[in-house]
Amino acid sequence: MRSQYCGELDSSFIDQTVTICGWVHRRRDHGGVIFLDVRDREGVMQVVFDPDAADSFEIADRVRSEYVIQVTGRVRARPEGTVNSNMRTGEVELLGKEIQVLNKAATPPFPLDEYSGVGEDVRLKYRYMDLRRPEMQQKLILRSKITSSIRRSLEDQGFIDIETPILNRATPEGARDYLVPSRTHPGSFFSLPQSPQLFKQLLMVSGFDRYYQIAKCFRDEDLRADRQPEFTQIDLETSFMDEEGIMAITETMIRDIFKEVLNVEFDDFERMPFSEAMERFGSDKPDLRIPLELVTVGDLMTEVEFKVFSGPAKDPKGRVAALKVPGGNSLTRKQIDDYTKYVSIFGAKGLAYIKVNDKTDLEEGLQSPIVKFLPTDVRQSLLERLDAQDGDLIFFGADKASVVNDALGALRCKIGEDMNLYTKEWAPLWVVDFPMFEDNGDVRLTALHHPFTMPSCSIEELKANPAAALSKAYDMVLNGMELGGGSIRIHQEEMQNAVFDVLKIDKEEQEEKFGFLLSALRYGAPPHGGLAFGLDRLVMLMTGSDSIREVIAFPKTQTAACVMTHAPGQVEPEQLKELNIRVRKPQSDA
Amino acid sequence: MRSQYCGELDSSFIDQTVTICGWVHRRRDHGGVIFLDVRDREGVMQVVFDPDAADSFEIADRVRSEYVIQVTGRVRARPEGTVNSNMRTGEVELLGKEIQVLNKAATPPFPLDEYSGVGEDVRLKYRYMDLRRPEMQQKLILRSKITSSIRRSLEDQGFIDIETPILNRATPEGARDYLVPSRTHPGSFFSLPQSPQLFKQLLMVSGFDRYYQIAKCFRDEDLRADRQPEFTQIDLETSFMDEEGIMAITETMIRDIFKEVLNVEFDDFERMPFSEAMERFGSDKPDLRIPLELVTVGDLMTEVEFKVFSGPAKDPKGRVAALKVPGGNSLTRKQIDDYTKYVSIFGAKGLAYIKVNDKTDLEEGLQSPIVKFLPTDVRQSLLERLDAQDGDLIFFGADKASVVNDALGALRCKIGEDMNLYTKEWAPLWVVDFPMFEDNGDVRLTALHHPFTMPSCSIEELKANPAAALSKAYDMVLNGMELGGGSIRIHQEEMQNAVFDVLKIDKEEQEEKFGFLLSALRYGAPPHGGLAFGLDRLVMLMTGSDSIREVIAFPKTQTAACVMTHAPGQVEPEQLKELNIRVRKPQSDA
Repeated sequence: MRSQYCGELDSSFIDQTVTICGWVHRRRDHGGVIFLDVRDREGVMQVVFDPDAADSFEIADRVRSEYVIQVTGRVRARPEGTVNSNMRTGEVELLGKEIQVLNKAATPPFPLDEYSGVGEDVRLKYRYMDLRRPEMQQKLILRSKITSSIRRSLEDQGFIDIETPILNRATPEGARDYLVPSRTHPGSFFSLPQSPQLFKQLLMVSGFDRYYQIAKCFRDEDLRADRQPEFTQIDLETSFMDEEGIMAITETMIRDIFKEVLNVEFDDFERMPFSEAMERFGSDKPDLRIPLELVTVGDLMTEVEFKVFSGPAKDPKGRVAALKVPGGNSLTRKQIDDYTKYVSIFGAKGLAYIKVNDKTDLEEGLQSPIVKFLPTDVRQSLLERLDAQDGDLIFFGADKASVVNDALGALRCKIGEDMNLYTKEWAPLWVVDFPMFEDNGDVRLTALHHPFTMPSCSIEELKANPAAALSKAYDMVLNGMELGGGSIRIHQEEMQNAVFDVLKIDKEEQEEKFGFLLSALRYGAPPHGGLAFGLDRLVMLMTGSDSIREVIAFPKTQTAACVMTHAPGQVEPEQLKELNIRVRKPQSDA
Repeated sequence: MRSQYCGELDSSFIDQTVTICGWVHRRRDHGGVIFLDVRDREGVMQVVFDPDAADSFEIADRVRSEYVIQVTGRVRARPEGTVNSNMRTGEVELLGKEIQVLNKAATPPFPLDEYSGVGEDVRLKYRYMDLRRPEMQQKLILRSKITSSIRRSLEDQGFIDIETPILNRATPEGARDYLVPSRTHPGSFFSLPQSPQLFKQLLMVSGFDRYYQIAKCFRDEDLRADRQPEFTQIDLETSFMDEEGIMAITETMIRDIFKEVLNVEFDDFERMPFSEAMERFGSDKPDLRIPLELVTVGDLMTEVEFKVFSGPAKDPKGRVAALKVPGGNSLTRKQIDDYTKYVSIFGAKGLAYIKVNDKTDLEEGLQSPIVKFLPTDVRQSLLERLDAQDGDLIFFGADKASVVNDALGALRCKIGEDMNLYTKEWAPLWVVDFPMFEDNGDVRLTALHHPFTMPSCSIEELKANPAAALSKAYDMVLNGMELGGGSIRIHQEEMQNAVFDVLKIDKEEQEEKFGFLLSALRYGAPPHGGLAFGLDRLVMLMTGSDSIREVIAFPKTQTAACVMTHAPGQVEPEQLKELNIRVRKPQSDA
């Protein structure tokens, strides 16, 4: 029906007769002439109808916003002074000869030509209109380019695309699983997968060597700011390859995508041990675009009278850290109060600070509610350790290490954003050497990743000091967000048993939770490992979007609903009967 | 860990030192030397250990089937007389210098080197072992190549890959939908999509112009021979394109895949109207590899005394048809009885036949239980119309047209297979000009495809004679199987209302069933249409498999269960309580 897309037309088409199809983006009368901006996926083309062509003029006169039309005409240069250099088609216009209305349109719920500040609820309700906006078109087109680029990069590296099931076995542990009642097995349920983890390990046992999948995954949890009940993972697994090999392959993939899609070239990714990331940035996903760092000062504080500092300084699980903000003593009382409130979200009970007005005057040159509690030599050591200059501000965190890290780590990013301290646009890195186990204060340790993660140490070392064991896990971090993570898996029974022993998971629990995977591993599992990336988040970062909802065609709201289709919906009692379930009446007991 | 895949090694590597990793496929002692066939994804390599290298020999002596090993050695030509020309690696062997056991393996549940006739239940239970078989590896590798080729072909043609939701709105009509209880909306349910139909139309309303997706779909029905609860569709939709354009694009895609993956080149696909397909082949998915055809003979039978023929011949909804089997009079009584039983599956009450022994002798030359009921002139006309020759056999179907078509259509294929009458390997075609509506004897007509399918006629013609209306629908058929189907959709309200009127779907029902799609179509829907292909079936045909289970990594059984993971499974009452449902006790009422 068309000879060209609207957005393709430029001065190389001048004097050619073309046919375009699209939506009326804008309609103007001007000097007895009708201007229609016609929009399609590729762009917008200005079409002019003058009264000489009476039939077409009359039709053009009747069209309204978002009518679907087909126009045939001759491309010509725009008159001097009306060239729009912001548009690919801005040098030309189409002199309309024939116009056909392919479909009428009701008045749009919000204007598409002058989009500004329509609430997200309205945008989601009329998502099919919202997606017409050039900005949204470009985001989803870019998403498609990204997935295409990922597939090409992985297939070029020998990966095979294999689909794993969506209808999985529900288990009593699957607290955040979506469940699907089985009709043919009354009282039993499938679950929707949170990841294809077990299946990808089985595929390695099967010898596929390099597997990948762009896989839908599901998680039924209260949706925080930017989570979706269904999301998409770039999932991959390889055999006979160590962590260096896997990191190299996936770094290549990310490098390929950025080069191909955004024409951005990365240097080799930095490597940072987990402990260093926590120490310097209070986070296992440090945003390295921001030049601020946490500095441990607990050793200076053990003997001060100020218990807020000396308590955590003496507690093996405590931490006292400082965050120097260069030029930060211009912050107002109000701003500092706001930051104090901000860190309280992360459990911090306060936010001590020192403004450095004159570093040579340790008495009067330091402006702070707490400086009076610190002896002069401590003040001196502090300034030296932080290399503080006049005009700087120093924030302090003192609490359990996890609280200090969370609070100052987040504050660091917040200040970086507020003061626009970014030193670069992209800051990718690998975080490595994660601890194998986490002590949540429970009776038993838990696996930081999952119990199949390979420890970096020997079985003997693991048994001797599990809390000190590191794992062969790795996370890829970009601009303070985890893009992906993975690990080398345990493939030998002896090591697996040692890890289960540490986790106090007995044979019965092993069998119940991981039965068929453990069986499979006994039949000749190769050394293997892998990684999973969050596709939605990657696309969000690459399109400069604020939310993953911006890069998902039909996202759910924060209550896991779709306001366009009104999902979830009601069903008939007969349907439930067939599935051997019934809806529990409100307030009824178990 | 490896320098080459096993299957890559050929005589070009002679005298090179290489390292391979893989599974011990077979182990033999022969003349004091140990032979290990080592298998990986790409093939099998023979490795030789002789006692000169004592350490390695000793390790090689201890390995067993399916152990995972790493071997370094020198590639050399096999001794004269031991070359295996069936294998890519058959001219060479690896003289093992170093061997490392990467993992042991329990005794396999079935032998992988001499696989034969292991029951499917055992194969599915140990699917991770079954998938190690080179045959299964090749099938899934080919599947990955096919999807990659599909994506490339469609993206080259301007299609954008867009993901649509898996968690959809459940509706009271969704009889075959899998349901997912919502935790956040008590008593409400999501459904898993049977297809992305509504969303792909919305994407056209949004102006994406060309959409595709390789999409997981779900259907909760009793699994016939070759259905799966979850299956994969190649789903696509385009705007501003008529049926010719869409058929051309998708034919190009299928042509591209066959050329790229199997090196098979197709001529232009034949086009056949639905009515012709039913008339000549009794099926809307005719297998054109088989040269047999149905021939209508009802007009000859209206006046015969044999009521089995004259009844259907006079009934407007009846049909009397003949199927000539050249050389078929060699069929035994037993074979004919078996075919009679076979057609009864399709509702045929019998299977009349005539063996043509001597076509010049209309009395004694025709061998048949029914010939006595047919006057001589009818016999003569029959033989002429069918161009019957001595030695042929003629089967008859006489019943309601649908029964005759189903029975003789199926019989045609069965005989084609039994007598190996195939005249070619691949027979693709388009079936077009489908009826718009189906008369199931209900109060109202039903849509043969769906109510958004565009009729071929005008609104006036549709209203005047709906039963005669054809639609702009098209199916792609290959070797007697429907590969894909689709249609141009209705994009204008007037036509849509006319179709709803014929179907007697009132405003309320429209709103309930299709509410948001109908709303969307009012805001400027472009002319659009699309198609969906069954990926599993396509891969099955292209790999020469008997079942789609052969080309799905982890399929379900016919009771929609997974015998490997024991899905579906039991869950805790607390999980159900969170989801506001409970399991209905057996025998309890509603």
